[in-house]
Amino acid sequence: MSKAKRTKRYITEKTAEIFNKKGFNGTSMSDITTATGLTKGSIYGNFKNKEEVAIAAFNYNYQNLIKRFTIHLIQENTAIGRLHAFLKTYEALYEDIIHIGGCPILNNAVDSDDTNTILNALSSKAFYDWNKNLESIIKLGQSNGEVNNDIEAGFYSSLFVSTIEGGLVLAKSTGEKKYFDHVIKHLKTTIKNSLSINSDLE
Amino acid sequence: MSKAKRTKRYITEKTAEIFNKKGFNGTSMSDITTATGLTKGSIYGNFKNKEEVAIAAFNYNYQNLIKRFTIHLIQENTAIGRLHAFLKTYEALYEDIIHIGGCPILNNAVDSDDTNTILNALSSKAFYDWNKNLESIIKLGQSNGEVNNDIEAGFYSSLFVSTIEGGLVLAKSTGEKKYFDHVIKHLKTTIKNSLSINSDLE
Repeated sequence: MSKAKRTKRYITEKTAEIFNKKGFNGTSMSDITTATGLTKGSIYGNFKNKEEVAIAAFNYNYQNLIKRFTIHLIQENTAIGRLHAFLKTYEALYEDIIHIGGCPILNNAVDSDDTNTILNALSSKAFYDWNKNLESIIKLGQSNGEVNNDIEAGFYSSLFVSTIEGGLVLAKSTGEKKYFDHVIKHLKTTIKNSLSINSDLE
Repeated sequence: MSKAKRTKRYITEKTAEIFNKKGFNGTSMSDITTATGLTKGSIYGNFKNKEEVAIAAFNYNYQNLIKRFTIHLIQENTAIGRLHAFLKTYEALYEDIIHIGGCPILNNAVDSDDTNTILNALSSKAFYDWNKNLESIIKLGQSNGEVNNDIEAGFYSSLFVSTIEGGLVLAKSTGEKKYFDHVIKHLKTTIKNSLSINSDLE
């Protein structure tokens, strides 16, 4: 990695959590220089503007999430196993997600959806990809006889994403983890009762 | 209403949507003077600081929502009827909620949960009250034989709130209403299959 790339990476790592917590407008250039120990000139030597740092910060936070989910999901060979692993990974990451300021995809969406088309497009694309991944897991389950063929995969994939995101916001704002626990419990029941063909055997 | 109260009300009405869209840090004093046509001195003559305007803006947005839900819910005499009215009111208000920048409770929660204890407490309290209201509707249904007694009212009330909030964020960020439609459809099914005693008769 070149020195320029290493510096960009360093600035990104040091500011990723700040952008996630404070949002684009709430993060000042002085937050960035304080967190990195670099001068304003050095920041602008590596990024065109604050928006470019915010984009790098979002991608860093998002890729970190993807990595951690992928590690758990690839260990499962069945579609139902992967759906449960998806929920279990959220349970395992709950404290970390709260600690970094909540889900980066949702935070950036709410922060930017009325004010910054470029930043919002990152969240919109992430929501889309996340839905598509879950949808393909459900469709795999349908093709190999694990999941009911009469359910719409895209309906349930989006239900999973929406429900978890909402539960995380309530838990984060109120400080009560039960809101998160409720949505996870409900989605486990949904896998069993609405998706899995072998629910009676579970 | 005194002139001072009228002016405060005017400033609140003119800035409520701006705070909901841009958040506390994203809303500048110049946004407030432009929206109201008043001078900075006049704003500070009516509110101690920007935080006080943001609090008034949140309460205004929140009370507007409550009023519109109350109008629909009081027309229903049964608990199941009220739960369905709750979902139907969301469907009726969908375009308005998107137009004002999304749900004010969630927006303010995400905006403030890591940065402003006073503003976040408003959302936390609103989530709590909203949950309690739905919980008491479900408990009413249990006491009068409409709703299964073996379900936990607080579990389902929080599931309703979390799921709708999540669906709204996805729909708002992606511009695709289907994410909202999916959560509403799922909650209607949940009323029928998990809450209502007379589900087989519906």
